[in-house]
Amino acid sequence: MSAYSIGLDFGTEEARALLVDLSAGSEVAVEHYRYRHGVITSTLPVDEPSEPLGTSWALQDPEDYLRAIGTAVPSLLRRSDVGPEEVVGVGVSFTSCTMLPVTAEGRPLCTLLQYRRNPHAWVKLWKHHTPQPQARRIEDLARTRKEGWLPRYGDSVSSEWLFPKILETLEMSPDIYEAADYFIEAADWITWKLTGLCQMSACTAGYKAFWSSDRGFPSRSFFAEIHPKLEAVVSTKLPPRVTPVGATAGLLCEEASRLNGLRAGTPVATPIIDAHSSALGATVTRPGRMVLIMGTSLCQILLAESLRPVRGIAGAVEGGVVPGLVGYEAGQPSLGDTFAWAANTLSVEGAESEADRFLALEDGAAQLRPGGTGLLALDWLNGNRSILDDSELSGMLIGLTLSTSAYEVYRALMEACAFGARVVIEEFEAQGVPAEDLVACGGLAHSTRLLPQIIADVCGRTIRVAESSETSALGAAIYGGVAAGPSRSGFRSVDEAVARVARLEDRQFVPNAGAERIYDHLYAEYRTLHDYLGKQNSVMKVLRQLREGSTEP
Amino acid sequence: MSAYSIGLDFGTEEARALLVDLSAGSEVAVEHYRYRHGVITSTLPVDEPSEPLGTSWALQDPEDYLRAIGTAVPSLLRRSDVGPEEVVGVGVSFTSCTMLPVTAEGRPLCTLLQYRRNPHAWVKLWKHHTPQPQARRIEDLARTRKEGWLPRYGDSVSSEWLFPKILETLEMSPDIYEAADYFIEAADWITWKLTGLCQMSACTAGYKAFWSSDRGFPSRSFFAEIHPKLEAVVSTKLPPRVTPVGATAGLLCEEASRLNGLRAGTPVATPIIDAHSSALGATVTRPGRMVLIMGTSLCQILLAESLRPVRGIAGAVEGGVVPGLVGYEAGQPSLGDTFAWAANTLSVEGAESEADRFLALEDGAAQLRPGGTGLLALDWLNGNRSILDDSELSGMLIGLTLSTSAYEVYRALMEACAFGARVVIEEFEAQGVPAEDLVACGGLAHSTRLLPQIIADVCGRTIRVAESSETSALGAAIYGGVAAGPSRSGFRSVDEAVARVARLEDRQFVPNAGAERIYDHLYAEYRTLHDYLGKQNSVMKVLRQLREGSTEP
Repeated sequence: MSAYSIGLDFGTEEARALLVDLSAGSEVAVEHYRYRHGVITSTLPVDEPSEPLGTSWALQDPEDYLRAIGTAVPSLLRRSDVGPEEVVGVGVSFTSCTMLPVTAEGRPLCTLLQYRRNPHAWVKLWKHHTPQPQARRIEDLARTRKEGWLPRYGDSVSSEWLFPKILETLEMSPDIYEAADYFIEAADWITWKLTGLCQMSACTAGYKAFWSSDRGFPSRSFFAEIHPKLEAVVSTKLPPRVTPVGATAGLLCEEASRLNGLRAGTPVATPIIDAHSSALGATVTRPGRMVLIMGTSLCQILLAESLRPVRGIAGAVEGGVVPGLVGYEAGQPSLGDTFAWAANTLSVEGAESEADRFLALEDGAAQLRPGGTGLLALDWLNGNRSILDDSELSGMLIGLTLSTSAYEVYRALMEACAFGARVVIEEFEAQGVPAEDLVACGGLAHSTRLLPQIIADVCGRTIRVAESSETSALGAAIYGGVAAGPSRSGFRSVDEAVARVARLEDRQFVPNAGAERIYDHLYAEYRTLHDYLGKQNSVMKVLRQLREGSTEP
Repeated sequence: MSAYSIGLDFGTEEARALLVDLSAGSEVAVEHYRYRHGVITSTLPVDEPSEPLGTSWALQDPEDYLRAIGTAVPSLLRRSDVGPEEVVGVGVSFTSCTMLPVTAEGRPLCTLLQYRRNPHAWVKLWKHHTPQPQARRIEDLARTRKEGWLPRYGDSVSSEWLFPKILETLEMSPDIYEAADYFIEAADWITWKLTGLCQMSACTAGYKAFWSSDRGFPSRSFFAEIHPKLEAVVSTKLPPRVTPVGATAGLLCEEASRLNGLRAGTPVATPIIDAHSSALGATVTRPGRMVLIMGTSLCQILLAESLRPVRGIAGAVEGGVVPGLVGYEAGQPSLGDTFAWAANTLSVEGAESEADRFLALEDGAAQLRPGGTGLLALDWLNGNRSILDDSELSGMLIGLTLSTSAYEVYRALMEACAFGARVVIEEFEAQGVPAEDLVACGGLAHSTRLLPQIIADVCGRTIRVAESSETSALGAAIYGGVAAGPSRSGFRSVDEAVARVARLEDRQFVPNAGAERIYDHLYAEYRTLHDYLGKQNSVMKVLRQLREGSTEP
């Protein structure tokens, strides 16, 4: 009998269910489910129109995740003619920190009538950036107290993470804070729905909630100093147990079986953050090879033997990606989003559709030489999540002349994103964490040939591209297979599973020496402006305040 | 018998001939003549293709000026049914410093076969910006030697001016330097063609060639120190005489009469720079009222009783605009050009033609509030000609987010141009030269209602708009009338002539107090970036060098 695993990957706009044949090491089929309510940024999807949400709000509807499972998995099995008994394991990957308040029974507060019109009762998506003040205060306090966990997060706290989001709820909507029995990652919530067990993944806890396997969560006194009501937040508002990555979180429960058509009792893996899951799908299980996950944002994952205080990382978690190694996460909160913005904002002769515009811009940009644009950009159109870690920063474009073309702007934005990636790589290397070669995956790794070449030239490293276009779902399926155990999947380790099902394309992007030299000059200028506008001059903050209507910045 | 004057206005792309009825004080008709060769930026218009010109080259064909006169003036008379005997005077306004090398007989070197393929033999247009290194050296030397004339030019020397252009020719093409009997402003050359007299206008000499009525040109020793071969440049390469503004340069010669159909003996006024001519056409003959000439570039002209060392002015010349007053010139080398760039580079939904795009962008930008864009720009897409006086600077846009719209960019560019105008006004006021209210003229003064309002709000001053859409040609016609003398024109003074024929529209743009307050904040940020990127950080220079192909900036 064949053995299959299903990877469930919950992205920003849609979920994907991927069926992997573990014996053949091949992807059999994928189902996409587009969330009915997508990203909620203006008004809540409730019967009577609600108050408009503010700038930087980004919510989701948890029912969308259940609909995704209930729709995509049965359809996947039907289409592939695979029986539920052949599916030996299920893995889950999810955006993070995407979190929600739920009752003790796991019911999302936003599904309760009395809280339905309160935006804090909904899922706060990873890119819900409003808790920046809360993040800043938590960071300041941790620095003052010299909290030992802070260096594992590059000495800074992101507005995207769990405790800033919880604190925002506590301060803005204390009733929701009181009503919530748990604040839980959507990854863990969906795994709860699958297994019936309320737990927390070591991956989400480690990367987004200051947890580590040796020290657990920060102390009660730390939380009390943030806010008196937070003192017991860990014991009263978080799931009671942390499960390790690469392990079995539990077995599929009856209710989930009725929802998705899989067999009750099927092993379900500890869920993992989508970017980290992509590392597996892109073949990375060993130190020295960095994964660039090139989607709407850019995530850079690197494995290493030891924990070092690398500036600007989003997190470093022992066993956070694969058991036994430290998984470092870093990156930038916009990549594809930036190019989409450019394609929609710049004029492109004769291009009708969005796809045409991308093609035309890439073609035009590809005909320019390094340095030929006369432009330099800062890649912060969605803030900075790298060594500055400040979501209130914004993008910049310098060098404009009356002959600057849309193609030049487009290329300058690509180069800026590559400079952003180089900042991250240099910080790793400076701390003795090698990133010798690069593997790209994600939508942009397959849709553009120019961007990987620019990154190779800017970073002075060869780039290869993952074969799978669904590396995150593939990584989830790999963990699903590992969770099934060697007797059912044939895999005795994560390495074995990855070796069987994950592959790289043959083509390579090799750095060009001449281009490298020019980009070294441009990068020096980038770094100067990066430090000046990121740290010394607060103009980006003032502009944001004025835009939001404050007349007194 | 009626008395008419003709104003000949030579712009960047075309020349205009305006017929003014001096008795009625009205504009009768205007003829436009588009230069056959326009602005020559890539290859010379010669039989066999020539070497491509470098970046920042901008040449013209002097034959285009003669064709303009030979075509537009006869057509103007014919169309208006005005006889040559009724035209009592002719005035000339011209872009400046637009200069060319000619023989002793006034023949342009580019019309001689042996020099035709040498770009230095052609007219170097005002915006021919390549002599930046020469300008810098002349400026440095003048500063070292504490040359007394330097403060009259805001302590800096522009690449647009006469001696940088001559020095470039001397260094790049010594044969042209040797072959030239005169380097002459196109304004003076065309007046030579009209009158048969080789002279230099006090306006062009004063603003573009370091001349003043009390001190003349800089010393031989200064020129010798720039370059040994320049020692006698004034006595050997410039016209032998300077004629005052507001006076008669000469009488129309037979040859010119055959060319344009006017009567030989008709008085021709001393030519004047087009921007300065616009001041008259916009009613400004008295201190305290600043003219904003809003065309492809922005020129700010202000009259005052006394000469002060104002930083960043392009020039201050006693009697340079009207007799008896100091005429200050300042401004920025791109305004309409910047908006045209934006209209061509930004995507505008549903707008087909360029005119539609302008309208749509202006409409969208007008719906935003001050500070509402979240953006700030530097208005240097064609360099800075204000207190930084550096043509190698470039534009910048900061505050970009994934939701930034084309309308926001467009408005930010308008605001940046207004900030640029405010820098100039503040410098004047700081030196005790009042600019109490503003008068706008030029194409943009009539085509946009948003820009004047933004300038009013940013500068905290009421703006009125000149009635004439041809203020420069009107100013030339006014000087033509004055040159004719009181017996023929009825004017005993420039004031009288202006009072008769120049008018303002009734509508006013009054500053809004709330907008002013927000713009004060934005302006403070603008000034910080202005100083940092204009003086401290050389990134714009590096980008320019890389664009031009130098790998070692």
